[in-house]
Amino acid sequence: MDLIRRREFVGGAVGTGVLLGAAPGVFAAQKLADIHAQIERGHDAAVVRLQDWIRQITIAAEDRGIEEGCGYMMQLAREAGFQHVERVPTAGHPSVFATLDAGAKRTLGVYFMYDVKQVDPAEWSSPPWEARLVDVPGAGKAIMGRGAVNQKGPQASFLSALHAIRAAGRKPPVNLVLIAESEEEIGSPNFADAVLAPQVRAALEKCVGIFMPEAAQSLDGTVQVSLGAKGVVELELVASGAKWGRGPSQDVHSSNRARLDSPAFHLVQALGTLIDAKGDPAIDGWWDDVRALSAAEERMLDVAATRMSEATAKKSMGVTHWARDADWRQALEDMAARPTVNIEGLVGGYTGEGGKTVLPHRAVAKLDLRLVPDMTRDSAVAKLRSHLANHGYGDIEVNVSGGYDPTTTPADAALIRTLVRVYEGEGIEPIFWPRRGGSWPGFVFTSEPLKLPAGHFGLGHGQRAHAPDEYYLIESSNPKIAGLDGAIRSFVNCLYALA
Amino acid sequence: MDLIRRREFVGGAVGTGVLLGAAPGVFAAQKLADIHAQIERGHDAAVVRLQDWIRQITIAAEDRGIEEGCGYMMQLAREAGFQHVERVPTAGHPSVFATLDAGAKRTLGVYFMYDVKQVDPAEWSSPPWEARLVDVPGAGKAIMGRGAVNQKGPQASFLSALHAIRAAGRKPPVNLVLIAESEEEIGSPNFADAVLAPQVRAALEKCVGIFMPEAAQSLDGTVQVSLGAKGVVELELVASGAKWGRGPSQDVHSSNRARLDSPAFHLVQALGTLIDAKGDPAIDGWWDDVRALSAAEERMLDVAATRMSEATAKKSMGVTHWARDADWRQALEDMAARPTVNIEGLVGGYTGEGGKTVLPHRAVAKLDLRLVPDMTRDSAVAKLRSHLANHGYGDIEVNVSGGYDPTTTPADAALIRTLVRVYEGEGIEPIFWPRRGGSWPGFVFTSEPLKLPAGHFGLGHGQRAHAPDEYYLIESSNPKIAGLDGAIRSFVNCLYALA
Repeated sequence: MDLIRRREFVGGAVGTGVLLGAAPGVFAAQKLADIHAQIERGHDAAVVRLQDWIRQITIAAEDRGIEEGCGYMMQLAREAGFQHVERVPTAGHPSVFATLDAGAKRTLGVYFMYDVKQVDPAEWSSPPWEARLVDVPGAGKAIMGRGAVNQKGPQASFLSALHAIRAAGRKPPVNLVLIAESEEEIGSPNFADAVLAPQVRAALEKCVGIFMPEAAQSLDGTVQVSLGAKGVVELELVASGAKWGRGPSQDVHSSNRARLDSPAFHLVQALGTLIDAKGDPAIDGWWDDVRALSAAEERMLDVAATRMSEATAKKSMGVTHWARDADWRQALEDMAARPTVNIEGLVGGYTGEGGKTVLPHRAVAKLDLRLVPDMTRDSAVAKLRSHLANHGYGDIEVNVSGGYDPTTTPADAALIRTLVRVYEGEGIEPIFWPRRGGSWPGFVFTSEPLKLPAGHFGLGHGQRAHAPDEYYLIESSNPKIAGLDGAIRSFVNCLYALA
Repeated sequence: MDLIRRREFVGGAVGTGVLLGAAPGVFAAQKLADIHAQIERGHDAAVVRLQDWIRQITIAAEDRGIEEGCGYMMQLAREAGFQHVERVPTAGHPSVFATLDAGAKRTLGVYFMYDVKQVDPAEWSSPPWEARLVDVPGAGKAIMGRGAVNQKGPQASFLSALHAIRAAGRKPPVNLVLIAESEEEIGSPNFADAVLAPQVRAALEKCVGIFMPEAAQSLDGTVQVSLGAKGVVELELVASGAKWGRGPSQDVHSSNRARLDSPAFHLVQALGTLIDAKGDPAIDGWWDDVRALSAAEERMLDVAATRMSEATAKKSMGVTHWARDADWRQALEDMAARPTVNIEGLVGGYTGEGGKTVLPHRAVAKLDLRLVPDMTRDSAVAKLRSHLANHGYGDIEVNVSGGYDPTTTPADAALIRTLVRVYEGEGIEPIFWPRRGGSWPGFVFTSEPLKLPAGHFGLGHGQRAHAPDEYYLIESSNPKIAGLDGAIRSFVNCLYALA
C-alpha cells in the first residue's frame, strides 16, 4: 500500500516515546483490564493469525491469489465477529464488505486492503512468504514478510483486538463497517465501485468516520497524525514507431538509426518536457490548481521541523542534498505540499547484460504523479495528455493504471481529536502532519457523497513497506515502541475512546 | 556480428540475379569440375558441419562457452587443413590463429568470428540451438539457429570449400592465414591484441588482403560489395544518486520525489542533450571530423538508389518515413555517411509488469554510436565525456564496453577487383556501396600498421542476424539465390581467382 511509513516520509523524529509497559495509559482506569488480559492470552494465536495471512499471497499487479485472498479476508472477518460478510464485485478485483452490529450507539468505518506489493525473493534476507520471526536490531523480534507492516500486520492486530474483546465476554463498544479492497497496490482503480455500491454506501453513511489501522511508531517512539494524503496517478507513457508513424515498427539493427527516427529518443525528449531544469513539474497548467498551505498547516510544519531529525531522514535514504537544496523545513513542506512527476521505471529495447545493437521500436516510462488539493486525478491526466499533444508528443500513449484524488480531513474532526486523545493517554504527543507525501484512496470517503473524516491509528512498529525485509514488530526490545500486544491494546483502547 | 545483412541495411534490391545452376560461371572453363563434384559429394557433411557448430554455443556477452568454442574453432581449422593452429590469448577472450601453407605464391588473410549474439528462445519458431532444417518461404530449405548466417554459415561454407579442394586431391591455390575472434558481438574490445601479436602480425603482413566470408545474396539475387564500414562505440551511461551526490542512493518510496532529485530524470535530461530536435547527434564537436563523401562514393549511391527498392526496405522494417523525411537517395547516403547516437536500451527502477511507486536511485541507457571517417573511437568517447561534463552531467558514468574505428578499403584494391570479377563471372553485377551502416573490426586490418585491403565475399543467402529465426539457406527453391553448394562453390572459385 502506498501509505508511507514514517521513516520514509518524514525521517526519524526526535521522540517523546514512553515505556508502554510502565505507562498503561488512561484506559486502565476505564476497567479494560479483562480485555488486556485476553490480549496476553491470545498472543500466540495473534502471531499465527498474521503469519498465516502473509502466507496467503494476493498481488493485484500480478493477478495472483485474488479469489483466494478474498475468501481469506471474508473468513478473517467472520472469525473476528462480523455477522454480515459479503464479496463486492467491481470492474476489477473484488472488495469485501462486512458489518458488525454490536447494538452500540456509534458506528465506525474501517478500511482494509488485502493485496500486497510484488517481491523479488532474491533481495530478501528471510523468504518473503514464510513470515518468519527474526531479530531486528534496535526493535526486537519481528515477523518478516511481504505485507507484514503494509498492511496485514496492523490489520491483523485490529482483528485480534476484536477477538480479545469477545474473549473477555464483551461486545465491541462501537458497531463496525469494514470495507477491504484488493487493488490498493495498483492505485485502487475500482475502489469507488465498491464503496459506492448501494449497501456499502448506506452502511458507511451511518459511520462517524473511517479508521485505518497502522503501525504508527518510529523507532524513537514518535507518532504522526496525518490530516490527509496526496493523490496519485500511476501511468505508463509508451512511445512506439507504430503509433508515431516514424521510426521502425519492430526492433531493427541499430545501423538503421542513421536513417530512422528513434521512438526511445522520442520518449526521452517527451519526458524532458515534463520537468524544468530543477526537476519540478513543468506540465502545462500543472500548478494552476495547487492550493497554498493554510497558516495552521504551516505551523504544523514549523513544529515538525523542530521535532524531527533531518540527519536521520537523510541517512535512511542515503541522501546528501534535498531537491533545490532546500532546508529541512522546506523539505518537509515539499513532502506535504509539492506535486511531483516521478519516473518509477524506464524500459526500452535491450535491457539485459551488456549491449545489443538494436534500434528499439518501443520504449516505456512508468510514471507516478503526486497531487495536492485542489488537483484531481482526472484533471492531472487531462493536463498531461494536452501537454504532450501541444509539445509534439500526441502520439505517445498515456496508459493510466490507477490513481485517485488527494484526501483531506479537518484537524478538528471528532475522529481525529479522539485518536489524538488516545495517543496522549499513552503519554505520546503526536506530531501533526498536514498531508502525507504518499497516497491512499481516502478520497472515496472524504469526498462527495460520503464526506467522512478519515484517520490512521495504531501503536506498534514496522518498516520497509514495498522494500525487501519488510517487518512488523512482535516482541519489542525497545522501550519506546510497542510490540504486538501493545498494538492490539491500542486498538482496544481506541474503540472504547471512540465509543 | 555487427555486419548488416542486405535486407537490413539497404533493403531489397531490384536484382540482376541469375539461375546459378544454369550459369556455372567462368570457372567451369578453369577445370574446377573435379572440385565442384566433391562439393556435391560432401554436401551432407557440410550440413552437419554447420549444424554441429551452431550447437556449440559461444556467447561473449554472457561469458558462455568461450573455451569450448575456442577449442571447437581450432579443431575446425585443423580438419580443414590448417597445419598450424594456435590459441591466442587477449586481455579478454581468446582468438584463434591458424595458417595453411599450400606452397602457393599468394597468401590470403581470412577473418572469422566464433561468438554469436544472445537469444531469447521464446521468440524463436525453431529452437535456436537445434539448427533444424526448416522451410523458408521464397528461399527454400534452411538451417535455422543462432549464428546460422552471422557468421557460422558462411564460415562453415568456406571451410567446406577447403574440404572439397582436398577431396579432389588438390592443394588450395593460395596460402591462408586465419584469425578468428570470440568477442565480435561485444564490440571486439581485445581483437587488436590478437591481430598485432607478433606471430599473427608477421603472418598477416604477407597477405594480399583480408577476406571475410558472407552470404551476400538478397532474396532477389542482388549482391553488394562494400568498401568499408562505420566504426562503433557501445557504452552504458549510468546515472546514480551516489555518483551524482543528489537524489537517493537506494530506491526509496516515490513520495520522496517531492524533496529529492531523480537520477532517472537526470539521465533523461542528459540524453536529451545528445541529439537535436531532428534526432541528429548534438554531442559537442561530433561533426568536426566527419569527412564528406567523395564524388565516386556519391556516384555509387546514385546507382544504388536506382537499383534498390525503397518500398521493400521500408516494408521490411515497418517504416513509413525516413528520418528528416529524407528521400531514398538521402536515406542510403545517411546509412553510409551519417554518424549516429542510438539508444539500444533503457533500464531504470521498476521494470516489471504494472507500476511500483519507487524513486529509483539509478538508471542506465545503453547506447551505440556509429562513426564515419575521420572519427575515431577514442575521440568519440572523449567528446561524449567532455560534452556531458560541459552540460552539467559530468557525474554520469560512461562505461564503454567495446568499439572500434571506421574501416575503408579502396575500390581499386586488387582484392576488391578480383572479388567483383568472381561475381561478374556468375552473371551478377554487384552494387557498390561506400560504407556499411553497420560495423566490423576491419580497422585492425585496414589501418596502421597492417594497412591491408579487406573485403567480404560469398554467394548464398541468410537473414535475421541478431534477430529470432536467423537462418542460412541450404537448398534453394529460388532461382536467383544460391544454396549451400553454390555458396561453397563461390568460395572455391574465389580462391582460384585470387590465386
